[in-house]
Amino acid sequence: MASTVVNPGLEGIVVGETVLSNVEGEAGRLTYRGYDIHDLAENASFEEVAHLLLFGQLPAHQELIDFNARLAARRALPSGLLAIMHAIPRDAWPMDVLRTGVSAVAHFVPHRPDGAHETSVDTAIDLIAKFPTIVAAWDRIRRGLEPIAPDPKLATAANFLYMRTGELPIPEAEKALDTYLVLLADHSYNASTFSARVTASTGADIYSAITSAVATLAGDLHGGAPSKVMTMLEEIGLPEKAEPYVRDLLDRHEKIMGMGHREYKIRDPRAQQLERMAKNLTEKSHTKWYLIARALEDASDKVLQEKKPGKRIYANVEFYTAPTLSSLGIPSDEFTCMFACGRIAGWSAHVLEQFAHNRLIRPQATYVGPEVHPYEPIAGRHAQTNGTANGHSAGTVSP
Amino acid sequence: MASTVVNPGLEGIVVGETVLSNVEGEAGRLTYRGYDIHDLAENASFEEVAHLLLFGQLPAHQELIDFNARLAARRALPSGLLAIMHAIPRDAWPMDVLRTGVSAVAHFVPHRPDGAHETSVDTAIDLIAKFPTIVAAWDRIRRGLEPIAPDPKLATAANFLYMRTGELPIPEAEKALDTYLVLLADHSYNASTFSARVTASTGADIYSAITSAVATLAGDLHGGAPSKVMTMLEEIGLPEKAEPYVRDLLDRHEKIMGMGHREYKIRDPRAQQLERMAKNLTEKSHTKWYLIARALEDASDKVLQEKKPGKRIYANVEFYTAPTLSSLGIPSDEFTCMFACGRIAGWSAHVLEQFAHNRLIRPQATYVGPEVHPYEPIAGRHAQTNGTANGHSAGTVSP
Repeated sequence: MASTVVNPGLEGIVVGETVLSNVEGEAGRLTYRGYDIHDLAENASFEEVAHLLLFGQLPAHQELIDFNARLAARRALPSGLLAIMHAIPRDAWPMDVLRTGVSAVAHFVPHRPDGAHETSVDTAIDLIAKFPTIVAAWDRIRRGLEPIAPDPKLATAANFLYMRTGELPIPEAEKALDTYLVLLADHSYNASTFSARVTASTGADIYSAITSAVATLAGDLHGGAPSKVMTMLEEIGLPEKAEPYVRDLLDRHEKIMGMGHREYKIRDPRAQQLERMAKNLTEKSHTKWYLIARALEDASDKVLQEKKPGKRIYANVEFYTAPTLSSLGIPSDEFTCMFACGRIAGWSAHVLEQFAHNRLIRPQATYVGPEVHPYEPIAGRHAQTNGTANGHSAGTVSP
Repeated sequence: MASTVVNPGLEGIVVGETVLSNVEGEAGRLTYRGYDIHDLAENASFEEVAHLLLFGQLPAHQELIDFNARLAARRALPSGLLAIMHAIPRDAWPMDVLRTGVSAVAHFVPHRPDGAHETSVDTAIDLIAKFPTIVAAWDRIRRGLEPIAPDPKLATAANFLYMRTGELPIPEAEKALDTYLVLLADHSYNASTFSARVTASTGADIYSAITSAVATLAGDLHGGAPSKVMTMLEEIGLPEKAEPYVRDLLDRHEKIMGMGHREYKIRDPRAQQLERMAKNLTEKSHTKWYLIARALEDASDKVLQEKKPGKRIYANVEFYTAPTLSSLGIPSDEFTCMFACGRIAGWSAHVLEQFAHNRLIRPQATYVGPEVHPYEPIAGRHAQTNGTANGHSAGTVSP
């Protein structure tokens, strides 16, 4: 039987166990299967990290060659999927198109997933390979250009940049995007990962679970933040304008996008790595975004300390995503898609973990609506005075 | 901070409040906003119930006329959406196509949802109207036939049957499908509804939230059961073969699909209503499915009582869905889509309720993987002996 204690947002409620990643908020530490995110960001490629998450170990030399070959073989999109994408209006939002595209990948496999572990692993690899191809293809289709096929010699990050422009990226750009994908690859039970596990827990297949995850990542409280950070950097325009901008925001009691995190009590360890990337890249590409972002983080901390002495605020992973991806030429409405291209590694591993130890995720709700009452035939009903749809018009709910 | 108590499946954990529906498992009672499901099934149309869920009240005469007109105006699919569906291979699973189709509806609205309540209500009505059209269109496209446009004079149930065949349904068929949609319209925080609310809680729009719900409903532990019931009825073939079939199943310690429910301790109230439909319809259409289903429910109860005296088992809503929908000519791989055509009313109302009282749904996980360890450069790594992807190969998890 359900207890009567309501746990809004499930904050602090432990729903399951995982071996995949660990967020230690007080220490500001993030690890994937025991590896510190700083070690991985500085040393490992996205493909090595995806292998670590899926298979439990960083790959040995030959394993990495084999894994890269499996990914390369699955990157191209079926022509039918491209036909679907060509039928989508060009003003469609890239995250909506990724959601439709991922859902549609399922139509082009010869058999529905049979639930066998090896089939799920194969599907995971298929999706890790195809996510960046879908995003790059839509980037071109919406600009009226033909998509560029992936190059089997290139890894994930380089391929994405190549498929957007047709040009091989400079090493700094490839490295920056690769590190970004590593940093975003997993983060315990965040909302999109949880959503993938809820879907998987009903026995739905991995395509369904990943479609849910993409749908959930789209929200502004989750993967939608970096493009809002970019809007802010564009509004600020010059580093010296950051401080007055922050004062104005805080005077109006508004939030500074990309600052603070429910989990981390000190600075998000991913922010440090991304800041390094953003700095290198913007110097290379002669853009000002890093300088504005850095000035904004400093100003936010300074102004907040004036207003609430002792209270510190730090950039989270979304914050330096904006100058990094923007310097790579990626438009801000595709930022969340790039987040998905990294997180698909973690989502897949979480879905495999859910399948291996499955239990239907089905919480309870407390009913706070009207008491049972007799049926009213239509002749005796009265029209609503306001005529407004309201989830709560016939009952009360405490927020 | 997270507690260390793990709540697998969130069973018994209350995640929120709702005014929409109440499942009283001990009493075998289901109510929508205070109306008993038996009253609604016997007296109200699906459109009246959708209005009740969305707006808080059963509609008065003119309100129902207006609501029906709003639905009628939104039933047809944009030609671009039909083009997408024509690009899908014909052997695609209907639930996968519904998931892609719903996701793709978002591409054809002129603006991305702005989060305003009226926009969300309008989108809800759009999706309630379009679900049956998508399912009927795919039913025809995969048979190599052109889709039939909806008839603005017909209501939801009659339209669906008409769009499948091009013929007006007999009144008994229309009434049966209409009642089925009423019975399936809401059921508190089931897994798909919860999934829609998780997605909505990040600030994602209603298209994203409903796409997650469709993805989640697909699982065998949720909306996928009725087609398995149909397989069972087909295997049994004759009413008198039900008892030996059940004995054989239970001897092999297998489950009987469509029997029992986590919530209801006595018979699911929806099963009674659906049984009545199934009986009427199969008599009308001269099929044997109802007789086999009835014999199977009796045999299951009898054999289980022999094996475990005092233990009763009852049909749930999925059980009599199979003979009902099958007698309407609907193929068993579309049963879950029909479930979605009813539940879209409840999903939409739950998403509106979530938006009105939002809080990010983000539970915790306990990390049980390897301790932090130093990075291993690739030269020093050893290949895995089994080479099998395993969500838990580098750590231990108690199931």
